[in-house]
Amino acid sequence: MTDNRLNIKLEFAKKVVKHAGAYIKAHMTDTLEISEKTHFDDLVTNLDREVQDMLITKIQELFPGDHILAEENNVRHDINDGNVWVIDPIDGTTNFIVQKDNFAVMLAYYESGIGKLGLILDVMKDTLYWGDGSTTYKNDAQISLSVAPLAQSLIGVSTYMYRTNAGGLLDLSHQSLGVRAIGSAGIEYTNILDGKIWGYFSNLSPWDYAAGAILIAPFGYVTVQLDGSPMSFEGRQMMMSIPKQQLEKLSRPIKN
Amino acid sequence: MTDNRLNIKLEFAKKVVKHAGAYIKAHMTDTLEISEKTHFDDLVTNLDREVQDMLITKIQELFPGDHILAEENNVRHDINDGNVWVIDPIDGTTNFIVQKDNFAVMLAYYESGIGKLGLILDVMKDTLYWGDGSTTYKNDAQISLSVAPLAQSLIGVSTYMYRTNAGGLLDLSHQSLGVRAIGSAGIEYTNILDGKIWGYFSNLSPWDYAAGAILIAPFGYVTVQLDGSPMSFEGRQMMMSIPKQQLEKLSRPIKN
Repeated sequence: MTDNRLNIKLEFAKKVVKHAGAYIKAHMTDTLEISEKTHFDDLVTNLDREVQDMLITKIQELFPGDHILAEENNVRHDINDGNVWVIDPIDGTTNFIVQKDNFAVMLAYYESGIGKLGLILDVMKDTLYWGDGSTTYKNDAQISLSVAPLAQSLIGVSTYMYRTNAGGLLDLSHQSLGVRAIGSAGIEYTNILDGKIWGYFSNLSPWDYAAGAILIAPFGYVTVQLDGSPMSFEGRQMMMSIPKQQLEKLSRPIKN
Repeated sequence: MTDNRLNIKLEFAKKVVKHAGAYIKAHMTDTLEISEKTHFDDLVTNLDREVQDMLITKIQELFPGDHILAEENNVRHDINDGNVWVIDPIDGTTNFIVQKDNFAVMLAYYESGIGKLGLILDVMKDTLYWGDGSTTYKNDAQISLSVAPLAQSLIGVSTYMYRTNAGGLLDLSHQSLGVRAIGSAGIEYTNILDGKIWGYFSNLSPWDYAAGAILIAPFGYVTVQLDGSPMSFEGRQMMMSIPKQQLEKLSRPIKN
């Protein structure tokens, strides 16, 4: 990473994400204020909002010209317009509430739509995955990853897409050793980076994939819609993060 | 636990299960010999067999009158006949092979069909869950568990049963915060004990549920077939491990 300006942002990002994780851990046994967003199973807590506010405040303090695209409170800057930080304060909020495990803090940084920095903190494992799109680190160790054939691998899935065979996912799963469902996009991306799953299929919002897409890119992974077209970084989209050489085979017209 | 004879068996069981876990950890980065059992996605390794043989040898050495019901090599003693040790040397073999994580060593001890001792070792977390059916411990700490309402909980599932709505599982899942699929019955039972899932629905063999059923019993859980009848400890059966007060509501005639 030769760009000094970017390096400053990387060091900043690592610091604030770790701080966010420490804050969540310190407060996770407090009584949480839990609210429903769209439905009884779509939850947010006061900690999601506090952590997002904290991250936004720090970004605006140090980089006042930069913009924010974030999960809570409808903070939605266009990814293609200037310098944009993408924030998921607690990814896997249901896991956070119910399990106190299997959730992540995610932060990504894009310039004019190009991913420059990605960070995923597995909070309960104290493990930070971070990178710039050309190399990825797990804490202090650079990750090297060789992708196994599908027939010797597991797939991370959205259970809805799996059971409805969206994108042919159920059919594809029969060519693998099986599927796993964890309930956090962030943790699924760390599982790709750890070689635990071959690919990931889900229905995601920008903050769910912004960091992960950057972190898996060095290993030949693409993150695309089911027809193979780029993610829009707007709204929710069914997507797949898969080895690039599988892209042609797995892309298919999207049924509406 | 006042029965001294049983206490000797418990201390023995804790020791051999921990030893098995240490053996697996010491050899898991060796080149594994992987064989298919019934299908390309039903795998066994040399370590499954070595660990099972080791456990059987030690049981027969110390308790020559006892019998064995075990996963590999067709060791199938009737659970209702005398003293029976039930062994799953590596539960979650696919996870073991692919992920090197999320697998367990399981051992249970039954007398005339009554569960007396259950042990599940989460190998990679170095965490041993053990108990006698009236109390359950996680390493050295006695577990206390209060079960949350389904609407505030997650369910552990077999993805096949989930997508085919076997036992009404898909319908039931809509009353919960969602489903999770881990790929190891042993880890699912530890997730019940950790309060991470409310219940578990799968298609299991005796060695998959023998230990778990004993460990969750102190918290009001039953492990039964989908029609509410007892497990047979023969062959694979679709089953559920659920809070007992939900039994009448969730039991239903099994469709063939």
